[in-house]
Amino acid sequence: MPVGTKGTVKGLTPGDLRSVGAGIVLGNTYHLYLRPGTDLVREAGGLHAFTGWHGPMLTDSGGYQVFSLAETRRISEKGVEFASVYDGSLQVFTPELTTKVQEDLGADITMVLDECPPANASREYHAESLRRTARWAERCKEAHGRWDQALFGIVQGGLYPDLREESLSRTVEIGFPGYAVGGLSVGEPREEMLESLSLTAPMLPADKPRYFMGIGDPVGILEVIALGVDMFDCVLPTRLARHGAAMTARGRINLRNAKHRRDLGPLDPECSCEACTGYSRAYLAHLVREDELLGHRLLTLHNVRFTVELCRRAREEILVGGFEEWSRAWMTRYTST
Amino acid sequence: MPVGTKGTVKGLTPGDLRSVGAGIVLGNTYHLYLRPGTDLVREAGGLHAFTGWHGPMLTDSGGYQVFSLAETRRISEKGVEFASVYDGSLQVFTPELTTKVQEDLGADITMVLDECPPANASREYHAESLRRTARWAERCKEAHGRWDQALFGIVQGGLYPDLREESLSRTVEIGFPGYAVGGLSVGEPREEMLESLSLTAPMLPADKPRYFMGIGDPVGILEVIALGVDMFDCVLPTRLARHGAAMTARGRINLRNAKHRRDLGPLDPECSCEACTGYSRAYLAHLVREDELLGHRLLTLHNVRFTVELCRRAREEILVGGFEEWSRAWMTRYTST
Repeated sequence: MPVGTKGTVKGLTPGDLRSVGAGIVLGNTYHLYLRPGTDLVREAGGLHAFTGWHGPMLTDSGGYQVFSLAETRRISEKGVEFASVYDGSLQVFTPELTTKVQEDLGADITMVLDECPPANASREYHAESLRRTARWAERCKEAHGRWDQALFGIVQGGLYPDLREESLSRTVEIGFPGYAVGGLSVGEPREEMLESLSLTAPMLPADKPRYFMGIGDPVGILEVIALGVDMFDCVLPTRLARHGAAMTARGRINLRNAKHRRDLGPLDPECSCEACTGYSRAYLAHLVREDELLGHRLLTLHNVRFTVELCRRAREEILVGGFEEWSRAWMTRYTST
Repeated sequence: MPVGTKGTVKGLTPGDLRSVGAGIVLGNTYHLYLRPGTDLVREAGGLHAFTGWHGPMLTDSGGYQVFSLAETRRISEKGVEFASVYDGSLQVFTPELTTKVQEDLGADITMVLDECPPANASREYHAESLRRTARWAERCKEAHGRWDQALFGIVQGGLYPDLREESLSRTVEIGFPGYAVGGLSVGEPREEMLESLSLTAPMLPADKPRYFMGIGDPVGILEVIALGVDMFDCVLPTRLARHGAAMTARGRINLRNAKHRRDLGPLDPECSCEACTGYSRAYLAHLVREDELLGHRLLTLHNVRFTVELCRRAREEILVGGFEEWSRAWMTRYTST
């Protein structure tokens, strides 16, 4: 899922997203609640109508932003108090509020409010937190009233296998049409996160979508797919683009690098997106160096297309039973240059 | 002509420009010569191939930027010495060089190198300058060798009717397939500029295109069209867009203004561009307030479309003999709100 933090995947129109095959887009409740405000979005007919993206859409609960953006926050059974990153004003998110806000935003998939404790919090804290998150999940489900909107649960528990398991069974017991696993959010080491996921994923109901939150680098995507994950989101493809970096089948390249300056070949010869078929690497490098809007836009389009295409291909390989072999070869090529 | 200073009309693709009916795009020789450099553009097959815009294109000579951007410059019969705005390096533009550079860039219309003295320079200075500009124009024509490229002359002479006339007759005597009139470039008061233009324009050959350099506000466009001008360029539509301002038939509006925040109607109900048909004013205002790339992009698209459409309509009215009446009514409406 490309991330449209503030109701826009930076620089792209819904038409662009369709053109690169994006099947679902993520919006951030935290930001949209504060700017432009839920009232306005609801009045406009929901996020689909407001943004012009009429395909599937998912909103997070805002919990992750509360725990990663704001310095000041106070957690209680009721919910979490925090200072808005926009104006420092005091805000409160409760399970009931974030559920209502997401109903007003109107995405097709919404998420329960969860606490995302830092990976290095104590075992005791993680245990306490996952139980509170489970109680919040129950309240979210209770508050949720839109039949045309799926509410997903979230498994937390840090890097402790038994706590992950406890979080999972509590969440599954409540019962949701899909489950997320809290991911790389708050500084877990990658290896441990994957190990923890490899323990959690097989225990999730096989007939429900599994969503791993916050991974977007190609190798990470293939790794979590191998562990049975169906959905993921990350700002990486769009953020890299704004820093002048493009993802290609032979690895990531930075267009500010002098060697691309006179390269009249395509950005990625294996890609059929507008950036790769309409322009040379030299032209894109020129746009990036001059910080031109069109450079950000075209690289974003390419990186989203690249990521979507990687997932499409992975799905294809899974269906024909060739995923493991293909994935290994793909990663070798991606990381060899 | 929308302005694509550095080989891109900021935020738009060639496809976008076609979609709003842009018939010709301007590129700035000064910038392209310095970044990415003429060698690279020539190697790429010229500006058309490099940028992907395959419609008509005009490049200026770079003279205007030399006289408006750089603090340090020294004019001699040979040409003009100046410090690059990019790195302060010493550069020299001669009539021969800017002609050659423009041949390498490969636009369909190119311009002679001219001096743009400030409007408040002395009469003596203007007289001396216009004569040197005429001698430079002769050298440009002499140096120009591409049969598939039109080289236009430029009339200068400041606000002195007799000097304008002298500049005009010297330039016409050399003979060019089109003529430009130096415009609002260096701080002339608008009224005097129009008065001066009203004296110059009728003396230009009736069968050659007349290009007034540097006007782009709707009223100014209609005023110079009334004086017989055929072509003009200005960064105004694109620059306004990046500041959150949109041009509409009922005047200019700034989307940062609070009154647009909850307006679910279209940006300009009379416009059929992507920004006006795909999104609400409230959504565009949200993008502008959050400084989102998509906001800059969509407003740029709209403002270029608005300006191109104004010119298309003017042309239509001229052909049916209704220009004067239509133009008066149009301006009244534009300036009444």
